Amino acid sequence: MIFSSVLIEEAVNEFARLPGIGRKTALRLVLHLMKQDEAQVSRFSETIARMRRDIRFCRTCHNVSDAEVCSICKNPSRHRETICVVENIRDVMAIESTQQYNGVYHVLGGIISPLDGVGPEQLYIDTLVKRVAEGGVNEVIMAISPTIEGDTTIFFLSKKLRDFPVKITTIARGIAFGGELEYADEMTLARSLSNRLPLENYVRERSA
Amino acid sequence: MIFSSVLIEEAVNEFARLPGIGRKTALRLVLHLMKQDEAQVSRFSETIARMRRDIRFCRTCHNVSDAEVCSICKNPSRHRETICVVENIRDVMAIESTQQYNGVYHVLGGIISPLDGVGPEQLYIDTLVKRVAEGGVNEVIMAISPTIEGDTTIFFLSKKLRDFPVKITTIARGIAFGGELEYADEMTLARSLSNRLPLENYVRERSA
Repeated sequence: MIFSSVLIEEAVNEFARLPGIGRKTALRLVLHLMKQDEAQVSRFSETIARMRRDIRFCRTCHNVSDAEVCSICKNPSRHRETICVVENIRDVMAIESTQQYNGVYHVLGGIISPLDGVGPEQLYIDTLVKRVAEGGVNEVIMAISPTIEGDTTIFFLSKKLRDFPVKITTIARGIAFGGELEYADEMTLARSLSNRLPLENYVRERSA
Repeated sequence: MIFSSVLIEEAVNEFARLPGIGRKTALRLVLHLMKQDEAQVSRFSETIARMRRDIRFCRTCHNVSDAEVCSICKNPSRHRETICVVENIRDVMAIESTQQYNGVYHVLGGIISPLDGVGPEQLYIDTLVKRVAEGGVNEVIMAISPTIEGDTTIFFLSKKLRDFPVKITTIARGIAFGGELEYADEMTLARSLSNRLPLENYVRERSA
């Protein structure tokens, strides 16, 4: 594509660097912004820059946060005895959107995936064990996608938590095997949260 | 969707305002940017803001420009006796990408479309007539999409330019009727530029 403006070309290049945005789409977005008020565009650009500059991760659960401790961990009406372990912050958002869960979270920051070079030491597993070891936790819910890597992660975590007096559960298999948690509709996700099973059932099903 | 961070929520809202970007895509983009270097994200945001702040429109042809006169009008090797009339700057980019055209442009800023409330007075038609009236122009190429509105615009312009000693042509009908110019592939677009027809042929074909 040939642009007659360096300003446009640079803006298109920036948009085209985003995932899933090709050069034609990038141009469409740039031309749209070109037609907006200057104030509106500068609000757009400032909001993005501020998000990146000020975003933090919760000291306790590693969820995204506007402060040192996230709004979920800080909320006194959330039950601290239940920890829902998820792969990433998208999964926190997905579960929060069901409005069915009132415990707290633990964001692993990924799942064990040797093919992608992700081992347990790159995930926030030690901090989860520490939270459980400190006591006050009755249940750890594994809300992890039922894929090979997810299963590996669940088994690894359950081994790590084996010696603590804590119930380990997994969300119900309402989600198809191989599916990604974040794409599940809210109904399915809500149902699989309320039908969660003790880990023994999960192991039995898996090996059957 | 429930976010546990106001910063993220605001950034998602800004992205979701762009055309063709839903909230899930917006979140994906925000989470992608969150993982980038702060310098990279601030370059992204500054490039967009600068584009909107500094972009201008060429005094002569109304194309986007980084200065008062665009790089095409300023280029001494472009033939000023041929003016290619297009609907918008996307069409300029599409034609420039064929690398087959060495004249100058005139961007109308739209086409006559009574249903959308766009009349001739909202388009840069007077400045086109003025350019032709000033002399030195041999040919005006109508590179306008062959739709009902495009045809209306071509006929309106040809009436306006009737009394000047200038050849009026249209790009060849290589583009399917009802199609949009900007989506044509470069080969088709290049061929339809080189096979352009005198307006009489076009009128004959249309009324046949």
